[in-house]
Amino acid sequence: MRVHVPPMTVERLPIYLRSLSTAFAEGMTVVSSAQIADMAGTNAAQVRKDLSYLGEYGTRGRGYDTQVLIDHLTRWLGIGSPRKVAIVGFGRLGSALVGYGGFAERGIEIAAVLDADAAKVGTEIDGMQVERIDDAPEVFAREGIDMAILAVPANVAHTVAAAVVKAGVRAILNFAPVVLEVPRDVHIRQADVAAELQILSFYVGNETRTGD
Amino acid sequence: MRVHVPPMTVERLPIYLRSLSTAFAEGMTVVSSAQIADMAGTNAAQVRKDLSYLGEYGTRGRGYDTQVLIDHLTRWLGIGSPRKVAIVGFGRLGSALVGYGGFAERGIEIAAVLDADAAKVGTEIDGMQVERIDDAPEVFAREGIDMAILAVPANVAHTVAAAVVKAGVRAILNFAPVVLEVPRDVHIRQADVAAELQILSFYVGNETRTGD
Repeated sequence: MRVHVPPMTVERLPIYLRSLSTAFAEGMTVVSSAQIADMAGTNAAQVRKDLSYLGEYGTRGRGYDTQVLIDHLTRWLGIGSPRKVAIVGFGRLGSALVGYGGFAERGIEIAAVLDADAAKVGTEIDGMQVERIDDAPEVFAREGIDMAILAVPANVAHTVAAAVVKAGVRAILNFAPVVLEVPRDVHIRQADVAAELQILSFYVGNETRTGD
Repeated sequence: MRVHVPPMTVERLPIYLRSLSTAFAEGMTVVSSAQIADMAGTNAAQVRKDLSYLGEYGTRGRGYDTQVLIDHLTRWLGIGSPRKVAIVGFGRLGSALVGYGGFAERGIEIAAVLDADAAKVGTEIDGMQVERIDDAPEVFAREGIDMAILAVPANVAHTVAAAVVKAGVRAILNFAPVVLEVPRDVHIRQADVAAELQILSFYVGNETRTGD
């Protein structure tokens, strides 16, 4: 059976999981949809609807078993064992992302770092060595990697994206400020820092000014 | 008049603006809602609804004047003159963000860089000098800054956030993997790289496996 989960629901799953992990750490072994909603910044009806897509209905009048729901979301997100990800591009951003503290506890493992620059290849970082982008097929096969973070300059992003897709990657988180074109079966998310700032700018500007 | 624009509409405005800028650069002086939808990855009815919140209705049968719509979105997003932003935390991530190529053309200007570490203060970067976080009130007033990117370690994020809010910041893009608590009138967005990867992991895992 294939289940369609709406994209907006998928967007909220990591937030639910993070909220539930916090709740569990604080000793809440059972949570209501209202409590989840409160932590996740949405409403109880939305929480129940989102979780029902995943086949989780809770127990009427009792709520959800926190640990069961954590396990369930973890499985749906495919992070029951850590999801292995490559960082492609070992510049300032790439090296910052290798050292980013928030991955391990969220089920993500940076399992390889690649760069095109021969001068960077072989550099030791976090127990790994930077490897050649040309070796991506072997590196990805060796490590079981099917996802990549693209942290390369805009002018080479298309070429590098094509190379990692050819090497077996099926999902890319793209930090380069360009829209990538990839085969239909490759998933792309744009880490668009400028867009995030524009959204904040909207809110700062529109709470005090009059509307047009 | 104050206008309520739904949060999901606000999320799409930067995408519309980017799409329209590309269209204009390619010589499209008039665009239909269907064309905008196509570029932005949504549908025409949604585009018309989103833009109507901003008082833009286009001309029936003709579509939207691209330049007029670009100007309109630019004004709503508060980036008609560049929105000045501080980067707080001059580690690997902070320095990568200073050099990020995608800001200027999107109406964002990095106008100051701050750090708590005396050894980093005074470092030259992109024509700026790294300044002390303790001097944030003076720096923000001097530069007209009311937004900040937080690129500090998780264990100091709360303290630093409180300091920049006290210094006048009204919006924070937070890269630290912690949920910040700020006054209600301060806007926060979480740059949650792990969540982005979890979402991609969901899609990679659920196109081939059977649903639960």
